Amino acid sequence: MRFHGYFRSSSSYRCRIAFNLKGVETEFVSVHLTKDGGQQKSEAYKALNPQGLVPTLEVDGLVLTQSPAILEWLEETHPEPRLLPQDPAERAAVRAFCAVIACEIHPLQNLRTLQYLEQNYGQQLDGKEAWCQRWIGDGLATCEALLAKRPKTRFAFGDAPGMAEVYLVPQMFSANRFKVDLSAMPRLRDIYAECEKLPAFAKAHPSVQPDAS
Amino acid sequence: MRFHGYFRSSSSYRCRIAFNLKGVETEFVSVHLTKDGGQQKSEAYKALNPQGLVPTLEVDGLVLTQSPAILEWLEETHPEPRLLPQDPAERAAVRAFCAVIACEIHPLQNLRTLQYLEQNYGQQLDGKEAWCQRWIGDGLATCEALLAKRPKTRFAFGDAPGMAEVYLVPQMFSANRFKVDLSAMPRLRDIYAECEKLPAFAKAHPSVQPDAS
Repeated sequence: MRFHGYFRSSSSYRCRIAFNLKGVETEFVSVHLTKDGGQQKSEAYKALNPQGLVPTLEVDGLVLTQSPAILEWLEETHPEPRLLPQDPAERAAVRAFCAVIACEIHPLQNLRTLQYLEQNYGQQLDGKEAWCQRWIGDGLATCEALLAKRPKTRFAFGDAPGMAEVYLVPQMFSANRFKVDLSAMPRLRDIYAECEKLPAFAKAHPSVQPDAS
Repeated sequence: MRFHGYFRSSSSYRCRIAFNLKGVETEFVSVHLTKDGGQQKSEAYKALNPQGLVPTLEVDGLVLTQSPAILEWLEETHPEPRLLPQDPAERAAVRAFCAVIACEIHPLQNLRTLQYLEQNYGQQLDGKEAWCQRWIGDGLATCEALLAKRPKTRFAFGDAPGMAEVYLVPQMFSANRFKVDLSAMPRLRDIYAECEKLPAFAKAHPSVQPDAS
């Protein structure tokens, strides 16, 4: 498997955590999102990923894009350890938690959206931070509220990390980067701290990736 | 099943199509997103859906949120007719297509994002249209490019409509609303036209919902 990603991309970070939890080895290909005007915009990369976004996973000639699709594929083809519960209602609860992050936060705070805001609406750093705080804060507060309805466990949905943590940890990293106030989210902070103790998460951290700068 | 939605919400529209394709009957509860300052912000609704977003599905005491999670739950609990293929690689291709819409387009053009842009950056209608055209145009061009790599079939991934059309049709409806130029997307336009002929899609159209205005 060849994995094309970028150290700071949340969606690449999600996949790295999942690969580590599953014990799946990949060959890493760096796609630097700001060097050379954005390596993801090269013709060679866009032949693999027409949208010019990371990540992309190549598996025996197969080209997979979009982290939610890659993660579901990984779960289906490498079922152990499970990242999703077996019961459909529980799977829906986990997937809703993940979708709050993937669909309601991440697209609003990713690099291309911030670049567009800056280029078209003249937003400076303060404006970008307020924008990110609005969407990350709202989404993570929702994640906290979803967990508040459930019994308290070590991780979000039980005693082992799973798909919820695959999405949550990169988003918490990004929340810290954009100085989001997490004081009203004790459950999420606890889960984040638990995850940081585990090698699968530590090895996936942006700061230890070969392309980190 | 009680389905809380709004006629013009893309994510509600997705679920309506899927219910119709599966032959699942639901009781509809209207949550009007602009009346009364936004009925989704009421305490009663937020007790069900802490983020105050539509849709929400109630099933025998179970409360499901986030359309991607609802749709995967529906596929798992009501498998016929299948909306996803059986082969994991094909499932990943369909899910990537859906994620381009769910994760790269929809959050950027939905009502709350546009309201925030308008309130905070003083965007008037022209600005909102340019913003929507940027993100819808880019995402749908990606969907077109993903399909261009595949054999041409009546629908996106075969001869029957499935999850790809569940996501695509509401997004095409919204693209027309925001006057997105679809001239370079002949495959998507053909698929949209094919879907419009089918009762499952016609019955799900926003204009024929009880809360349409």
